[in-house]
Amino acid sequence: MMGMLRQSLHELSVTTRAREFHELTGAVADLVTQSRLQTGLCTVHLQHTSASLLIQENADPEVRRDFERFFARLVPDGDPLFEHTAEGDDDMPAHVRTALTAVNLSIPIASGRLALGTWQGIYLWEHRTRSHRRRVTVHLLGE
Amino acid sequence: MMGMLRQSLHELSVTTRAREFHELTGAVADLVTQSRLQTGLCTVHLQHTSASLLIQENADPEVRRDFERFFARLVPDGDPLFEHTAEGDDDMPAHVRTALTAVNLSIPIASGRLALGTWQGIYLWEHRTRSHRRRVTVHLLGE
Amino acid sequence: MMGMLRQSLHELSVTTRAREFHELTGAVADLVTQSRLQTGLCTVHLQHTSASLLIQENADPEVRRDFERFFARLVPDGDPLFEHTAEGDDDMPAHVRTALTAVNLSIPIASGRLALGTWQGIYLWEHRTRSHRRRVTVHLLGE
Repeated sequence: MMGMLRQSLHELSVTTRAREFHELTGAVADLVTQSRLQTGLCTVHLQHTSASLLIQENADPEVRRDFERFFARLVPDGDPLFEHTAEGDDDMPAHVRTALTAVNLSIPIASGRLALGTWQGIYLWEHRTRSHRRRVTVHLLGE
Repeated sequence: MMGMLRQSLHELSVTTRAREFHELTGAVADLVTQSRLQTGLCTVHLQHTSASLLIQENADPEVRRDFERFFARLVPDGDPLFEHTAEGDDDMPAHVRTALTAVNLSIPIASGRLALGTWQGIYLWEHRTRSHRRRVTVHLLGE
Repeated sequence: MMGMLRQSLHELSVTTRAREFHELTGAVADLVTQSRLQTGLCTVHLQHTSASLLIQENADPEVRRDFERFFARLVPDGDPLFEHTAEGDDDMPAHVRTALTAVNLSIPIASGRLALGTWQGIYLWEHRTRSHRRRVTVHLLGE
């Protein structure tokens, strides 16, 4: 393909209530639709260090509860290993959970849509136990 | 550099036989060569939630066996922690292993080749214990 | 936005002294400033398999010490599980730590700057216990 590539930049804001998964698939897909890009690249970046972006199964909510249980066991709140506790006993675990997952994603755009698999959803995974306002930057590129 | 940027989109299909590493370096490098891009960006996205893309050492196969052993211990099949077991006792571990690694990669293109380090290979890491057909989307951009 | 997109490719070289965090935020931000791109995408790729790129908190150094402690416990040096020991008892743990984090990052550029959050810094995380020379490729794209 050869043509005039163009780009656009967007911001999403999400208020999380607690440690939870917040689905972003629809909001990101809407930006792609509005851009009218047929082929391209969608980059999603989360501007925080204690929440993640995760592409995971969007069918059975039990999967996300199991994720929560696994990570709570792997990186327990209040672990005496951690010395950085001034911001709460869930803060350092939230940083580690973020490092073990991701804060940016790159998804091709094909036929005017995100090239996600059938079962793939995009989630913002809040790792802090209290409500936070989270900012997500979306960069779209293509033609 | 300034010129006319162009992009292209490609799909690779891989049939895995079992929990294993399947090297993709050659297939992705071939797409880059065929595109004749000299400078650019290669994005690789795996359309699944129970297999990963991993850039890792391509020299000693022992490294990949050690990876398998480490992840089998970290996220054991049949762990009673997991409630989502309807699709098999390796399904939820496969999701967690995927979350702990990645499903998309972004690799610059320099001098007409993927800017991988000497020891870096691109692998599709199948986390399910049975054969699956896996789809990979490759987006190339550059000039 | 519509205009003439352009790209450029850069290489950074870092000599690490030991297992440690080396901040790259300033070096990458300088490349963005010099490029004079106002809107775009910055991709950072590390050409190694035993060191990572990590976006994490840039305020309290205690956070990075806690990261080190957590990963040292999760993936201990000299773990008898590992058979690939010819390159030292910190080599296979370094590969695993790399797989659990990332070797490439994609960060949008907005208003002429990296769209990082207030507390986000970009780090090269050396996982080997001895000094290494590490190469990082930076791809900039935008207008």
